Amino acid sequence: MRHPFEFPLDLPGRGSRRRLQALHGQLRAAILDGRLGPGLRLPATRELALALDISRNTVVAAYDLLLGEGYLEARRGAGCYVADLAARRDAPRARSGVPGPEARLAPHWRGFDAVPPPMSPGGAEHDFRLGIPDNRGFPYEIWRRLSARALRQLSKAPPLYAAAAGRSALREAIARHISFTRAVACEPADVIVTSGAQQAFDLLARVLVTPGRTVLAMEDPGYPPLRAAFAAAGAQVVAVPVDTEGLVVECLPADTDVVYTTPSHQFPLGVAMSPRRRLQLLAFARSRGALVIEDDYDSEFRYGSRPLDALQTLDRDDGVCYVGTFSKCLFPALRIGYAVAPSWLRAALAHAKQLADWHGDVLAQDTLAAFIAEGHLVRHVRHMRKVYATRRTALLDALARHGAGRLQAWPSAAGLHLAARLSAGVDAATLASRAAAGGIHLEPLCAYAHEATAPNGIAFGFGMIDAPDIDRAVYRVARLIDG
Amino acid sequence: MRHPFEFPLDLPGRGSRRRLQALHGQLRAAILDGRLGPGLRLPATRELALALDISRNTVVAAYDLLLGEGYLEARRGAGCYVADLAARRDAPRARSGVPGPEARLAPHWRGFDAVPPPMSPGGAEHDFRLGIPDNRGFPYEIWRRLSARALRQLSKAPPLYAAAAGRSALREAIARHISFTRAVACEPADVIVTSGAQQAFDLLARVLVTPGRTVLAMEDPGYPPLRAAFAAAGAQVVAVPVDTEGLVVECLPADTDVVYTTPSHQFPLGVAMSPRRRLQLLAFARSRGALVIEDDYDSEFRYGSRPLDALQTLDRDDGVCYVGTFSKCLFPALRIGYAVAPSWLRAALAHAKQLADWHGDVLAQDTLAAFIAEGHLVRHVRHMRKVYATRRTALLDALARHGAGRLQAWPSAAGLHLAARLSAGVDAATLASRAAAGGIHLEPLCAYAHEATAPNGIAFGFGMIDAPDIDRAVYRVARLIDG
Repeated sequence: MRHPFEFPLDLPGRGSRRRLQALHGQLRAAILDGRLGPGLRLPATRELALALDISRNTVVAAYDLLLGEGYLEARRGAGCYVADLAARRDAPRARSGVPGPEARLAPHWRGFDAVPPPMSPGGAEHDFRLGIPDNRGFPYEIWRRLSARALRQLSKAPPLYAAAAGRSALREAIARHISFTRAVACEPADVIVTSGAQQAFDLLARVLVTPGRTVLAMEDPGYPPLRAAFAAAGAQVVAVPVDTEGLVVECLPADTDVVYTTPSHQFPLGVAMSPRRRLQLLAFARSRGALVIEDDYDSEFRYGSRPLDALQTLDRDDGVCYVGTFSKCLFPALRIGYAVAPSWLRAALAHAKQLADWHGDVLAQDTLAAFIAEGHLVRHVRHMRKVYATRRTALLDALARHGAGRLQAWPSAAGLHLAARLSAGVDAATLASRAAAGGIHLEPLCAYAHEATAPNGIAFGFGMIDAPDIDRAVYRVARLIDG
Repeated sequence: MRHPFEFPLDLPGRGSRRRLQALHGQLRAAILDGRLGPGLRLPATRELALALDISRNTVVAAYDLLLGEGYLEARRGAGCYVADLAARRDAPRARSGVPGPEARLAPHWRGFDAVPPPMSPGGAEHDFRLGIPDNRGFPYEIWRRLSARALRQLSKAPPLYAAAAGRSALREAIARHISFTRAVACEPADVIVTSGAQQAFDLLARVLVTPGRTVLAMEDPGYPPLRAAFAAAGAQVVAVPVDTEGLVVECLPADTDVVYTTPSHQFPLGVAMSPRRRLQLLAFARSRGALVIEDDYDSEFRYGSRPLDALQTLDRDDGVCYVGTFSKCLFPALRIGYAVAPSWLRAALAHAKQLADWHGDVLAQDTLAAFIAEGHLVRHVRHMRKVYATRRTALLDALARHGAGRLQAWPSAAGLHLAARLSAGVDAATLASRAAAGGIHLEPLCAYAHEATAPNGIAFGFGMIDAPDIDRAVYRVARLIDG
């Protein structure tokens, strides 16, 4: 069989992979344009290999590919036949009228060039990054043991899908924990377990926002991922300024439907919302039927005098949804947060959760429930609070010592960071850039501001820097400000 | 049953659509004003149809509407009951002009009375439930060991948030795994790790749907949570029939933007999409710039002759997003799935993932990556395939032995269930109800159908029933059909 087909095959002389690609491609082309018509029986692999003077493996592989793709059909023990592709008319895409691929995306989602980059591992000599806790003191061995126990229990149960609102034991543990630590009034049934606080925000955006109509008011500077979630859902987002008493309630637009606020520890300025503003905000919400989302993201760590309870504790109108997270007191990799929603919101939120991903990782939930119930969370938080308190004191001392005329700290009494106003004449973004070149990671406040009127300043996170290094780091920042 | 209700129904003599409207409206009115009180069980569809001398399809459709609207509740396998609407009555707000609480929810999300109930633990003597794998052979000790190792590694790294698209090791493992098992052409960079397939669907709904405009076509009977996710996002959802070759591509509306399909193992009929239909579907998608979502949910388990490769392998136009899950071959509690998206979709999907919950549980991802890389997944699947194959054979034998004239199996060659058509004169929902009373859990196909034209039949899952019990269970079902 010198010419197995009526048309020539052009195969490269060397390279079995290239020969396979060529053979496969040319046979496929011949099938598609009809030179090899439907029902035609192809030569046996051995004969074709001989005729083409190539290895039989190559022919077998080419036939296998074509079989898998549906261009060939195998008839039992009787070789390979060209499939009937009549149905597949290669209708050329009419270029006019058929949109390009990006048009298949909803408008909000066009224009992304690449997947979001991973968080930079750091490597700065002095890292004042926000939002990252110190995990070195975390009792991983205890977590491992509890996780193994949870897995054993899971292995004995039927492998059903779990409840959308979260595992009962965890909802109980959370309700007890926040009743105790934050005075949040709630029963286990009020708790919806989410994949981090971010998912709580995302679900809230979904069930609250009517695209193009719902108005979300949020602090500015504020927390960008919250804005992004609500904007993606089609909300109109309005920036509201912050002063030393927190969110300036007087500036809330009259048609506000949802208010997002961080009253324990404003992100990123760090101030606590005053009692006066808290009552103002709740009165505003009540009079307009608006919902307040309280994000209590790192209030496990509180310093100084008796802390203010959660805003939610003052609410009598089912107007506050309290959102918390374990990312700052455990480790972010875990992805467990929660929403304590008013009664009218609860069912919708749980159904939205179910649609989003059925339920959260059960092993992690059960492990955390035990971790809380056995008192390990409280012990760990107590330990870390001392660690962070030492760093915070070091930072405040360093700012007092080196910051005069340069950096003025905003008052804050909780959390893993504090912010400082930068003296006029020095731009925070420029300073951060200079500092990065010198191995110091600083967060300019403008990174968290939407409006151009954001205060000029720096947020100093102390999750990733040790107390002994803080004074020197602040000293160097002061020199950079001067220079 | 000559007078099924204590009040008269007034249905037009002709026109099934008008009869449906009348029946639906009059039942709804009776529920609202209490003539049909909470907790009352409605007559079975077949009985009511007989009593009213109308088609059963009309009754099924009316019940479906009322179920969807929340006026009825379905109790698994035990018929429809009038819902308790006392909670639904909105307490009027004292202040005029201020909307009641429910008005704060976007319209789609109003009307949920309670959080979704947890999955029933079962307890049926013979459980043919769908979608639940058998976890008793799962190598939990290996998982525990790998999880402990992953935790140790995590403890040594800075506690940063991880990449939205998923951990590198897992994306690599998935890419290698599906290239090998399903011939899906993909690089690790093409893989987005999601919290189960459900999150992949939810994210796809988000980035693809422009509310009120985007048209999703899906198989009917089909997978309800997919419909729910797209409907919640505001898509118009069109049901397309299925025959023995799978999705009937000829019935796709001309303005379809997105097609959802389960080509390896139609959910729930179990048929495989023929090569002819695969090429037709891709040609359709190409000519309209539509996207096909391929849900390959349980194709790890394939029986019989050489399986068809994934539909995605035939696509040359970036028109298929391949979605998979580990829920059926590991355990659902884990919540790990993935989407292999075409290039134009990838970045948007990853950004949507980041907004939804930042990233998936890192411990679980890292553990799974090792589990796959060390060959444990392949071994486990190979083991379970034999277990399921034995059950499937037992089921087919039992259907052949006891099912003549009663149950006719649809051809299927993969997965954890198969479906059978029920002979005329026996209503599947009624049969399921009778069976439940006798300790047999059956899934009527109408539970998965949106249109009233769904085939009358039963889907038999074999994840939760042992091979030796299958023959007796089918025998008992046959007796119920006769009686």
